[in-house]
Amino acid sequence: MPSPGLPASVNGLIAELKKLPGVGEKTATRYVLHLLGRGRDAADALGGALSAVSTKVRPCPRCHFLADGDLCELCRDPGRDISVVCVVEGAPDLLAIEKMGEYRGSYHVLGGAISAIRGVTPDRLRIRELVARVDAGGVAEVIVATGADAEGETTALYVRKALEGRPVRVTRPATGIPMGSSIEFLDSVTLLRAIRGRKEL
Amino acid sequence: MPSPGLPASVNGLIAELKKLPGVGEKTATRYVLHLLGRGRDAADALGGALSAVSTKVRPCPRCHFLADGDLCELCRDPGRDISVVCVVEGAPDLLAIEKMGEYRGSYHVLGGAISAIRGVTPDRLRIRELVARVDAGGVAEVIVATGADAEGETTALYVRKALEGRPVRVTRPATGIPMGSSIEFLDSVTLLRAIRGRKEL
Repeated sequence: MPSPGLPASVNGLIAELKKLPGVGEKTATRYVLHLLGRGRDAADALGGALSAVSTKVRPCPRCHFLADGDLCELCRDPGRDISVVCVVEGAPDLLAIEKMGEYRGSYHVLGGAISAIRGVTPDRLRIRELVARVDAGGVAEVIVATGADAEGETTALYVRKALEGRPVRVTRPATGIPMGSSIEFLDSVTLLRAIRGRKEL
Repeated sequence: MPSPGLPASVNGLIAELKKLPGVGEKTATRYVLHLLGRGRDAADALGGALSAVSTKVRPCPRCHFLADGDLCELCRDPGRDISVVCVVEGAPDLLAIEKMGEYRGSYHVLGGAISAIRGVTPDRLRIRELVARVDAGGVAEVIVATGADAEGETTALYVRKALEGRPVRVTRPATGIPMGSSIEFLDSVTLLRAIRGRKEL
């Protein structure tokens, strides 16, 4: 519901900002008033940054992460091990793994997970492109780091099947008790997985 | 700290978004990935809305609220009573009063409150413009709705002084116990004001 006292252009900007995740009328209005309070340059700087992203950013042709040149920053980095490919559902997952600062392999962004409810069929994900990458040679291991939920598990099984018969190791990150959590408050499924996957101490 | 794996233009947009109030690295990254996930049109629509605001929005020459034409929406509305002027510190205060849906007078946005700490002297506020509006005639009452904190109180006193001797009623919203609150948890200053300002039941 637009504020009746505000100019149309301000209400238009509020409407656009409200499309961002977790942003409602109040937050959007606060953002706009803050931008206007900082002077016209603030809105122009944000607008310029948006248009740079809009015109430059494309999916990396190799791993489908965000790129604004030919390949993405990660695929361009000669220090990354391209014989290991970590398959993720989306860019936020990739960023979480990068933040860890330990993984030095490459990635493959699927663009989602198989979901009957949301109508995401395997052909809408970049699984064919993954198989093509493996078939092109040089890949020794594919780590399927899709979510540990129903959709992620289904997708992982599908990826394993799609890669079957190819000379490549297909692995999946371990499931178990997350660090820092007590047994008491853990859900049964996680606990069951952790007990089944127990190791020698 | 920019994410090393992201394209420069994406990090640039994250840096701009982080200037918004309450937005950190994580939220800014989420906004950008959400925008990119919605396709290029989403970023363009937001950019267009920003540039519309940046080129069109100016302070209303009469009340100094946001306007994108000549006068603001409120000053243009023939249904508003221009003989009553409500003085507020900023646009958010005006919007809060408008939301109430009861006030039908006009406004005067000061652009802040007098503050020794933040170096806001009276001449940096639009007090001269308020006095000129009153002197131009047709104003019967000025409601000084600056904050009920030290800076707002100082500003209110200053405004009253600036209007002294002019044929205009200068009023201030009542202070007291906010609706829905218990006496137990109220601060002493509010309670003192409420007791001093007590009325016949």
